[in-house]
Amino acid sequence: MDLTTLGEFGLIAQIKKAFPETNEFTGIGDDCAILPQSDNLETLVSTDMLIEGTHFLKEDINPYQLGWKSAAVNISDIAAMGGKPVATFLSVALPKDTERNWIDEFIRGYKDISLRYDTVLLGGDTTQSPDRICINVCVIGQCQKGTAKLRKDACIGDAICVTGPLGDSAAGLRLILEGLKDDQEAEELIEKHYLPHPRVEEGLRLGANPKVHAMMDISDGVASDLRHILDACGHGAEIALRSLPLSAALRRLCERRGWPADQLALCGGEDYELLFTIDSEAETQLDVPHYVIGHITAAPGLRWISDSDSKDLDFIGFRHLGT
Amino acid sequence: MDLTTLGEFGLIAQIKKAFPETNEFTGIGDDCAILPQSDNLETLVSTDMLIEGTHFLKEDINPYQLGWKSAAVNISDIAAMGGKPVATFLSVALPKDTERNWIDEFIRGYKDISLRYDTVLLGGDTTQSPDRICINVCVIGQCQKGTAKLRKDACIGDAICVTGPLGDSAAGLRLILEGLKDDQEAEELIEKHYLPHPRVEEGLRLGANPKVHAMMDISDGVASDLRHILDACGHGAEIALRSLPLSAALRRLCERRGWPADQLALCGGEDYELLFTIDSEAETQLDVPHYVIGHITAAPGLRWISDSDSKDLDFIGFRHLGT
Repeated sequence: MDLTTLGEFGLIAQIKKAFPETNEFTGIGDDCAILPQSDNLETLVSTDMLIEGTHFLKEDINPYQLGWKSAAVNISDIAAMGGKPVATFLSVALPKDTERNWIDEFIRGYKDISLRYDTVLLGGDTTQSPDRICINVCVIGQCQKGTAKLRKDACIGDAICVTGPLGDSAAGLRLILEGLKDDQEAEELIEKHYLPHPRVEEGLRLGANPKVHAMMDISDGVASDLRHILDACGHGAEIALRSLPLSAALRRLCERRGWPADQLALCGGEDYELLFTIDSEAETQLDVPHYVIGHITAAPGLRWISDSDSKDLDFIGFRHLGT
Repeated sequence: MDLTTLGEFGLIAQIKKAFPETNEFTGIGDDCAILPQSDNLETLVSTDMLIEGTHFLKEDINPYQLGWKSAAVNISDIAAMGGKPVATFLSVALPKDTERNWIDEFIRGYKDISLRYDTVLLGGDTTQSPDRICINVCVIGQCQKGTAKLRKDACIGDAICVTGPLGDSAAGLRLILEGLKDDQEAEELIEKHYLPHPRVEEGLRLGANPKVHAMMDISDGVASDLRHILDACGHGAEIALRSLPLSAALRRLCERRGWPADQLALCGGEDYELLFTIDSEAETQLDVPHYVIGHITAAPGLRWISDSDSKDLDFIGFRHLGT
């Protein structure tokens, strides 16, 4: 058996088995690990790796965007727990012929998002790579003790919500891969893919609301990410396809090109919106902009509710590995 | 200008310039960053990346050793500040044909060192790499507030010490690269390279001693690492070559093969012993096993004192990038 058979989540399961949970820490299985910090605070930690050829193509993404995105996907993990990002650590392996201007632009992108979300770069590692660019960011954040939102805490009857439109990033990726950077609207969708804005302010407000139960960010697509919540809480869910928030730009693009909007919205990933569950009564009072897309059910499994009942629907989220 | 001209330390300088220091944190420039934690404690964070083809060759290092070493080099950074390692985060990108047995052995090595140093793996990232293995570990530790040892704190007159013999790891690497795994002694030196033992217990005791001023771990060789202490404190140093602690195995090997022992000891790197400076009077009372190799001087620069004064000596430490 090799990695193709084992798959990314199989590998994570192997690692998790080797390191059983302790009472002191909340570890593998949420967007961040939680470590005790002080009487009032807990420390949140997450890390993400980006490999040239797997996560990005150097000829497509510019260095400013790559610097921004490297930090963004990590900061989003802190937002997903309802925490405040504090500091990042950047490891970067570069081929020796990397141009100075490329490096300067990468740093500028990384710096701009750090300033935008009030985080500091406090360290890292720089090294040479024989060929491909390899980036790893580790982010440290914090939250009030006991307030971090965990996937396991979703309750039966909860409304399932997202903080913004889905599928723009996936459409942007498809436009890039098919070489279709042909108009202003395409550019905007591509920018959604390259320059995601983590929902830090929203995450903090949702984190402070005790009626919000489970939360995570949408990195692999709702179809995959919601399954993680269901695995953790042991319940099921129904998602109404007509409720999926789609941007006007995405609708127009899909209509023009005959692309499946639902598929992009559910399986594309990298939207970095927040996916959360909230007590359904509290949802009506919630002052954070959001869209209800379904609810948590006692019946297990994930069901897609379509207006045309005849369709046999099955959406599977984006996976980098082992699909 | 490309990365070859800029170099690793040039790149770090660029990044440091883009992110000026704040009063709240101690950032780039020591083995770890220091973040406020509670009234009594501070959080230490460090991260290191290992790239196949730059830091290791898959055909030479076995997966158990690679798992061990990936965590070891990070845990050593916590020891270098006088702190206690608490948790690690592992990012790993693997080619899709990576064998299941390779993965199991990697995890076993990582787990063994985690148990040995009482750290827990709390998270990370797993992804596919198009070809090379890429590993990043981020380590979190802690220390009593205000006790972390900083490079800038070396004082004129301090004794310069190391916690163990130098050069074994470099000799092991040379044996590997030249295909000379021919006897028990060679195997032992090679094991020093592949399975370093970070000096955590020693680091904690040195950390608790206020007479110990500056400290770091030896990752690039004393010749390079000591220069970082001198750059930070603004003083100079004299190192007596006859005082360098060399293992019997290294002496015998160098004699047999005509290899330069001093060069291996000073420039080879990856010993992961601690390099520290201590008030010279307190040094005589120090109950942590150590070797005095020189002292901090008011005169700037780094001078090598040899028994034969005629030699024009200049040692430069090991660099992965931009040499």
